Amino acid sequence: MTLKLLIGNKNYSSWSLRPWLLLKAFGIAFDEEVVLLGDADFKARIAAHSPARQVPVLIDGEVAVWETLAIIEHIAERFPDTPIWPAAPAARAYARSIATEMHGGFGALRSAVPMNLWRPVELRELPAKAVADLDGITARWRSARQRFGAGGDFLFGGFSAADAMYAPVATRIRTYGLPVDAVSAAYVEAIHAHPAFAEWKAAALKEEQVLPVDEVDWPEVKRV
Amino acid sequence: MTLKLLIGNKNYSSWSLRPWLLLKAFGIAFDEEVVLLGDADFKARIAAHSPARQVPVLIDGEVAVWETLAIIEHIAERFPDTPIWPAAPAARAYARSIATEMHGGFGALRSAVPMNLWRPVELRELPAKAVADLDGITARWRSARQRFGAGGDFLFGGFSAADAMYAPVATRIRTYGLPVDAVSAAYVEAIHAHPAFAEWKAAALKEEQVLPVDEVDWPEVKRV
Repeated sequence: MTLKLLIGNKNYSSWSLRPWLLLKAFGIAFDEEVVLLGDADFKARIAAHSPARQVPVLIDGEVAVWETLAIIEHIAERFPDTPIWPAAPAARAYARSIATEMHGGFGALRSAVPMNLWRPVELRELPAKAVADLDGITARWRSARQRFGAGGDFLFGGFSAADAMYAPVATRIRTYGLPVDAVSAAYVEAIHAHPAFAEWKAAALKEEQVLPVDEVDWPEVKRV
Repeated sequence: MTLKLLIGNKNYSSWSLRPWLLLKAFGIAFDEEVVLLGDADFKARIAAHSPARQVPVLIDGEVAVWETLAIIEHIAERFPDTPIWPAAPAARAYARSIATEMHGGFGALRSAVPMNLWRPVELRELPAKAVADLDGITARWRSARQRFGAGGDFLFGGFSAADAMYAPVATRIRTYGLPVDAVSAAYVEAIHAHPAFAEWKAAALKEEQVLPVDEVDWPEVKRV
């Protein structure tokens, strides 16, 4: 049975982008179902599959998995011959650790510059805590690229789950004109040049529902 | 080479408890190194192993893994014959999803009632968001117990990584006298009755460093 991924608006839902990008990048077949974040029945529709009532949710036959990192680990187990995580032990450990940091951390950056692919590119000044988050993220990127990145343009050379986790940050750096070092800037370009990301972005630009994420807090959806 | 786990104070560090409990419960040999959260050189000592400069960190030969959930997945891969996650697909997916929710979520409850095993048992009134978190957690516990718990006293019957992730919540329910349903109350007892947890608690009660977690924010350590 084909996997099904429930996702939110492609323009806004950074969490939805992550597993979608991973599946696409590895050519794993799946059906997608978009449940728009601003629709009145959003939570009711997700509640049929997950008590968290958030996107993304992966439906694999009779089994539902939610929370981005759990979905990624489920995919990694389900497709053991696909290099979802880097194979070498040190790279794999580093990838898992920084992917997990992205799952639970860097909240100041996430709040300050929500993913919004429509937004005209324009510098936004960040509060100090968000600057510290961005510095921490780019330090990890440089470390990964230097230690493990020789085989390609991504954090661990070839595309992996760590790139899926950090792709929304790459979009924020571009959208909000955030200054980063040359290694990180090249990585941001690599994410944007990936065909799977380009496919996501093209679809995002065709969406019509406008959400007030940039102006006000968005209380009904914890993680846009 | 024996695994080594860097942990913080056993009285306070809920994140340290999780992988420690998992390793102990499954009888996996490891050395522990306590780095007290209140020590001036805490961050410098952790920085040698992890850019996050937080505990826990697992050191596995030449490899360091940090972030609790990444440590758990590393252990699960390293010991594939040990039932770190439940084996049945539906149980495994549910366990991974709710464990990952605990990793990144339920922040209102975590802030309102920090783990503190020394604290005399006394009711603390929770703010509404923390009540909602607790309601969400116990709903997941009841669902896991009902659907998957038949083989034992833990969320998925026998002890698993999901129990390791939620054990600190069980201590908070007891310490702060939080009212929960009967199924959840029985589960809280099961955690406290586990020999590995008892060993952790006995060591916690012998520690001497007092941290102001209950009164004020603790800025130097993001996650006590």
